[in-house]
Amino acid sequence: MSTMRAVQVVGYHENLEMAQVPVPEATGPFDVVVRIGGAGVCRTDLHILEGQWAEKSQVALPYTIGHENAGWVHAVGSAVTNVKEGDKVIVHPLITCGLCRACRSGDDVHCESNQFPGIDTNGGYAEYLRTSARSVVRIDDSLEPKDVAALADAGLTAYHAAAKAARRLTPRDRVAVIGAGGLGHIGIQVLKALSPAEIVVVDRNPNAVKLAVAIGADHGIVADGSQVEQVLELTGGHGAEVVVDFVGEGGATKEGVAMLRRAGDYHVVGYGENVDVPTIDIVSTEINLIGNLVGSYNDLCDLMALAARGAVTLHTQTYALDDFQSAIDDLNAGDVRGRAILVP
Amino acid sequence: MSTMRAVQVVGYHENLEMAQVPVPEATGPFDVVVRIGGAGVCRTDLHILEGQWAEKSQVALPYTIGHENAGWVHAVGSAVTNVKEGDKVIVHPLITCGLCRACRSGDDVHCESNQFPGIDTNGGYAEYLRTSARSVVRIDDSLEPKDVAALADAGLTAYHAAAKAARRLTPRDRVAVIGAGGLGHIGIQVLKALSPAEIVVVDRNPNAVKLAVAIGADHGIVADGSQVEQVLELTGGHGAEVVVDFVGEGGATKEGVAMLRRAGDYHVVGYGENVDVPTIDIVSTEINLIGNLVGSYNDLCDLMALAARGAVTLHTQTYALDDFQSAIDDLNAGDVRGRAILVP
Amino acid sequence: MSTMRAVQVVGYHENLEMAQVPVPEATGPFDVVVRIGGAGVCRTDLHILEGQWAEKSQVALPYTIGHENAGWVHAVGSAVTNVKEGDKVIVHPLITCGLCRACRSGDDVHCESNQFPGIDTNGGYAEYLRTSARSVVRIDDSLEPKDVAALADAGLTAYHAAAKAARRLTPRDRVAVIGAGGLGHIGIQVLKALSPAEIVVVDRNPNAVKLAVAIGADHGIVADGSQVEQVLELTGGHGAEVVVDFVGEGGATKEGVAMLRRAGDYHVVGYGENVDVPTIDIVSTEINLIGNLVGSYNDLCDLMALAARGAVTLHTQTYALDDFQSAIDDLNAGDVRGRAILVP
Amino acid sequence: MSTMRAVQVVGYHENLEMAQVPVPEATGPFDVVVRIGGAGVCRTDLHILEGQWAEKSQVALPYTIGHENAGWVHAVGSAVTNVKEGDKVIVHPLITCGLCRACRSGDDVHCESNQFPGIDTNGGYAEYLRTSARSVVRIDDSLEPKDVAALADAGLTAYHAAAKAARRLTPRDRVAVIGAGGLGHIGIQVLKALSPAEIVVVDRNPNAVKLAVAIGADHGIVADGSQVEQVLELTGGHGAEVVVDFVGEGGATKEGVAMLRRAGDYHVVGYGENVDVPTIDIVSTEINLIGNLVGSYNDLCDLMALAARGAVTLHTQTYALDDFQSAIDDLNAGDVRGRAILVP
Repeated sequence: MSTMRAVQVVGYHENLEMAQVPVPEATGPFDVVVRIGGAGVCRTDLHILEGQWAEKSQVALPYTIGHENAGWVHAVGSAVTNVKEGDKVIVHPLITCGLCRACRSGDDVHCESNQFPGIDTNGGYAEYLRTSARSVVRIDDSLEPKDVAALADAGLTAYHAAAKAARRLTPRDRVAVIGAGGLGHIGIQVLKALSPAEIVVVDRNPNAVKLAVAIGADHGIVADGSQVEQVLELTGGHGAEVVVDFVGEGGATKEGVAMLRRAGDYHVVGYGENVDVPTIDIVSTEINLIGNLVGSYNDLCDLMALAARGAVTLHTQTYALDDFQSAIDDLNAGDVRGRAILVP
Repeated sequence: MSTMRAVQVVGYHENLEMAQVPVPEATGPFDVVVRIGGAGVCRTDLHILEGQWAEKSQVALPYTIGHENAGWVHAVGSAVTNVKEGDKVIVHPLITCGLCRACRSGDDVHCESNQFPGIDTNGGYAEYLRTSARSVVRIDDSLEPKDVAALADAGLTAYHAAAKAARRLTPRDRVAVIGAGGLGHIGIQVLKALSPAEIVVVDRNPNAVKLAVAIGADHGIVADGSQVEQVLELTGGHGAEVVVDFVGEGGATKEGVAMLRRAGDYHVVGYGENVDVPTIDIVSTEINLIGNLVGSYNDLCDLMALAARGAVTLHTQTYALDDFQSAIDDLNAGDVRGRAILVP
Repeated sequence: MSTMRAVQVVGYHENLEMAQVPVPEATGPFDVVVRIGGAGVCRTDLHILEGQWAEKSQVALPYTIGHENAGWVHAVGSAVTNVKEGDKVIVHPLITCGLCRACRSGDDVHCESNQFPGIDTNGGYAEYLRTSARSVVRIDDSLEPKDVAALADAGLTAYHAAAKAARRLTPRDRVAVIGAGGLGHIGIQVLKALSPAEIVVVDRNPNAVKLAVAIGADHGIVADGSQVEQVLELTGGHGAEVVVDFVGEGGATKEGVAMLRRAGDYHVVGYGENVDVPTIDIVSTEINLIGNLVGSYNDLCDLMALAARGAVTLHTQTYALDDFQSAIDDLNAGDVRGRAILVP
Repeated sequence: MSTMRAVQVVGYHENLEMAQVPVPEATGPFDVVVRIGGAGVCRTDLHILEGQWAEKSQVALPYTIGHENAGWVHAVGSAVTNVKEGDKVIVHPLITCGLCRACRSGDDVHCESNQFPGIDTNGGYAEYLRTSARSVVRIDDSLEPKDVAALADAGLTAYHAAAKAARRLTPRDRVAVIGAGGLGHIGIQVLKALSPAEIVVVDRNPNAVKLAVAIGADHGIVADGSQVEQVLELTGGHGAEVVVDFVGEGGATKEGVAMLRRAGDYHVVGYGENVDVPTIDIVSTEINLIGNLVGSYNDLCDLMALAARGAVTLHTQTYALDDFQSAIDDLNAGDVRGRAILVP
């Protein structure tokens, strides 16, 4: 049995450690083993180390972290027909059953018995990852695993919310995006590609606002306390038909609801604080508060189609797998521009 | 100029008073004057007297109260083509402009310049009411104004929420209805007519639960503290795909959200307390919190079609217009079974 | 290796023959072997014998016929988690891949690499049938395989069309159903359960019309040449918002389109003749002509939910498997009331 | 009473004639009189002169022709609140009642009692036109009436079809557009603005194909007999998810259906021949044939929003109103590039 390098959680509130572990094998009929080409380093990984996911995931330590993965198919189980050895793929973050009602309806994210590599089983900070035929999406020749890996989770979440939001948007509508960081940056590009609405972006960071406008936002607003007023002014006093909130804390939810037009949709993506709105306000303006989880397998396929034609791009900063601690440290220090990617 | 009897608000925290006022005329091209056959007495009328609407409505006193009206067309303006003198009609609670984007999209309830007779202009506790051609719906020969008047607002709100909720309901789904009072009673009948889902009704009042089951609910639950558990049990531990909350206070919102399945819809209809939910819960279960206002003109037409075939009925208790104070007193005392209706 | 009885196609334009063949085994990871409790005898089976499907199916003779099956799970493959030995199930007519875009979207009927037992591989006129975990639906304790078998294909097609049609139907709408035979009979029950629209049924057979009204149609019309006029009269001269045509031959398509209101939907379910409509008519009335194939796995689950509560029932006439020729002969002679079912 | 110049139909198969007629007045409460800034010359105008519309329109001769109009508000009726004298407007081609079910649902194009200026009442080849408050859309300061007039009918039809088609299009889908002439040219720009799908354009004219690619089509195909094969090749052998046919004659309908993927939508916009498809094909591939009429008032508002930001442009060739015969002659001779516009 051959072995490989894998970066593991060995204890909460401890540093990750490099270990030598067996290369996973495609023993199940639908198993797919992927040789990692890039693994995104995500803020969730920091939260895992802080123990925030321990109770929820019930994962036994040590295990291999990393849930944003892309690479090449290394081995497939006996019943796999959609990919073959050597295929270049991005990996959907969930392993889903394919048989429950949610899976049968294309809502695989709500699968009743799923696994989440990197969270509750071994993930992709490693040379190889075991996933399922149901989780791999072949990517265009023009795309490289290390360039798209971070689209597997952060990007997919942003795509999902933006695509849901876009469904009702017409050329006369306005969509306000709160937060132009990692997810917002993708969300704006997706809204631009999928909808004809005017895009207004709100962020505290003037540079993020500038970048948002450069990639397609029609209006950029630096959040200085007057952001709600500014959105209302840009929308003739009515508010935006749709608000997509990639922040969800620090007062963003109250502001997001206040920016909304009658009968508007407020999309919750970022999280932290409570949504706390009087029912009389919800009723009298007939607004909708809409939750958004990570995207489905179909969403990931759609996002890869956009990526293949250059409609969605992401800035990345690569680190050798052995330098995992630098990536973690840089992320912790706020020193990563775009997304940090580990390359084995 | 002929005159008529009209029950008016003469001051907040004072009793209503009967007055002799001019009969309204159809002076505008789209005006329709309706001879009142029945006017519903609504809890909102009590709130008006308590002054709760004073600031919002900015109505000048005295004015005629009453926003749930039905009767016969008495006079029409020069441009009215949809009804003629003598037609039996129910009156949509709003007078809408017909020209704004909302009106042009069938969402007249969100009309940018509407009037609300009985709230911000003269209403229907009277012999005649002035409304608009855009607000009158001819009703079936088999229906009587005094029997359907209360469907004009309370019933219409319940119809609207139930019809929105029904859109996603399939034969395998479960819908939990919180509150089997006036609105809930209509909502249950509408859900029964429009959707194939299993209907679970929750109310504190055992008699209301019994009645709910009699009119079509599949399961009745008396709210005794274990109602969330009972709904979960009835839904295989998953929760209901849809919850329609006609209560909105006393803890109903927390319970409603707790009864919800992943990716479920929680409909806010009743109001009082705040919806207060952690964004992490909204995101991780991907639920939707959906506001519901009164129904549109189209909703009222649809509701009248159901009423005409007996699919929606309402218990009423009639009072002569002159006995308005008894109706108010009985409502205040909780002595009205069904809805109180004033008949001139 | 144990053997079983199976009724096989041995040549086109020849009689079916009983053969002794091996019992199928669950060799593949997702295989499910079902012990047949009932197999529907369908008009398509007659067409297969006439060779009409030979070129399309490319099936090698001899093979076992029968595509409407229900029974009990006899054996499962290594990866099957949704059913276990002994479960009572109905069998979706297709074996689908679960990996193509259609399957991942819940549209498994359009699976890019499917098999159709009874058409292009061994079917259910036998003691056992091999299908897939993706094709079996557990049925309610109150249902028996022989009673629901015919819902697996004929009933599923009717459900699918009626459920698609129902999506736009409101209480003010009218739906005209052309053909109250096997499929139409189910279709009417489904429309009744899923939609609040008025149902008008048209058939040449007065008894079928009578039965249609007995199971819930609001109006029955015997097709005597005046059926289009009668539908127009019942709809105020406008036509029906939706027409569901379970016939598709003998002039039904022209009549169906003529019964349609502006912006209406004409659903093609039955087939035989060409739809032949001037583009100017399609454009000037803005109508839609909508194709309908058999239902998806989800549709079958929904239909079984309706069947479990008695909302959809079907008259059947059972035959011992050994009497297969009598069933075929009776069907050919028009002597089957409801559906003929073979019981091993 | 002041008079104005107006170009009138004086007899079928005769030339149009300039006449001096009264300036229309805003006598009805919702009347709006528009001073014409540009009136599009449309192929339908040629058909009117050939008498093709005589029976259908029942218009009394002489009358003023012209149904693609834009200009400035000159006078308004007593109840008009959405525009005022001097406003720059484009005119929706229909005058609708605002009270029928279609109008109340935003589908004003299916209004039960509409008028069509230029077809069945006086149109816009004149100095002034009478229309309704329900038909005027204020346009952006940056747009000029003569530049947008042709969007009022030809452009609006293309917008409507493209917007309906776009609703189901995702980044992985392909839409084939048949015909890159006047309507197709607009349709392509709208698809580009509203959908993320790949756009394939088919036309017989190599220059039209070249132009289509220049304005955003991803692939251009010159129709040389191999166009169906080429579309199939570009779509992996599957066909396009959506086909929008702006031609509708000369075999386009058969080709359009042949280019379609399983479960695909074929949109009929252009007309001339019959759609003639075997029901078995419609059923077995489960395709939809979708009619498209001119767009609604809301569609026109949306189209103007796209035009205001330069997302939809149109080449025009202007003529003085007095030179109406040259415009007609040039159109007849195929000598107009883009659309001919009369300017009073």
